[in-house]
Amino acid sequence: MGDLEIRRAAPEDIPAIVAMLADDPLGARRESPDDLTPYLTAFERLASDPHQRLVVAVREGSVVGTLQLTIVPGLSRRGSTRSIIEGVRVHADERGSGLGTLLIEWAVDESRRQDCRLVQLTSDATRTDAHRFYERLGFTASHVGFKLQL
Amino acid sequence: MGDLEIRRAAPEDIPAIVAMLADDPLGARRESPDDLTPYLTAFERLASDPHQRLVVAVREGSVVGTLQLTIVPGLSRRGSTRSIIEGVRVHADERGSGLGTLLIEWAVDESRRQDCRLVQLTSDATRTDAHRFYERLGFTASHVGFKLQL
Repeated sequence: MGDLEIRRAAPEDIPAIVAMLADDPLGARRESPDDLTPYLTAFERLASDPHQRLVVAVREGSVVGTLQLTIVPGLSRRGSTRSIIEGVRVHADERGSGLGTLLIEWAVDESRRQDCRLVQLTSDATRTDAHRFYERLGFTASHVGFKLQL
Repeated sequence: MGDLEIRRAAPEDIPAIVAMLADDPLGARRESPDDLTPYLTAFERLASDPHQRLVVAVREGSVVGTLQLTIVPGLSRRGSTRSIIEGVRVHADERGSGLGTLLIEWAVDESRRQDCRLVQLTSDATRTDAHRFYERLGFTASHVGFKLQL
């Protein structure tokens, strides 16, 4: 396979990112890839927030992966800054290629560059393959993740 | 008990907030209330980030509770903005008073004002009382929370 680049997402990447968000057992029920308007609005909010990094992995001109990294300052743990990973997706054609590992390694490296002491993420309890993946990368399943829909 | 106010934290609240962070089975091992320097530095980072709300609950002039709310834009769920609650603490003298509920209700109301579609948090797997508390408030324990210390 050709060279891989991980770079900041641009507005023209949105259709490919949304297609990956929707091509997922949970995402299929939540996303609307036929109407990109809400995604483009959200992209503007992301782009204007210096604590957000929405990135894409690109191979041979095609977007094949994405994730969002949020840098969160805080008081606890002696004033530690932490980062939060959300929206990790790998294109169906790339699964098993090690791209997920490269994306998470990028996020961990970027978190170190931003002086974070902790990287955290939540994964739906049904995604048991993902849980093994994160544990192989050194993450500890130490917490319960709660959500409230508004 | 006297009237309760929930307001933005100010630098002079830091000693009381750190004392609450440290007065906790997990926090006791992580915090350094005798050296406030890293907390004051972190407070400056929080205060300069418009997507952060660090609040305190004040009763009769005393800080009796705190939490941090982070507003996180994102592409998934049709471009939904979500919020993340961290660092919820209630002073030992106020436990059982309903203050925890008031703090979380404040965070949920503020999340609605910020057009969030989802409020999320993680709680250490050992804090089983906290888990029942969040479930009573309508949160669903749908996720596994992973952390990686750097």
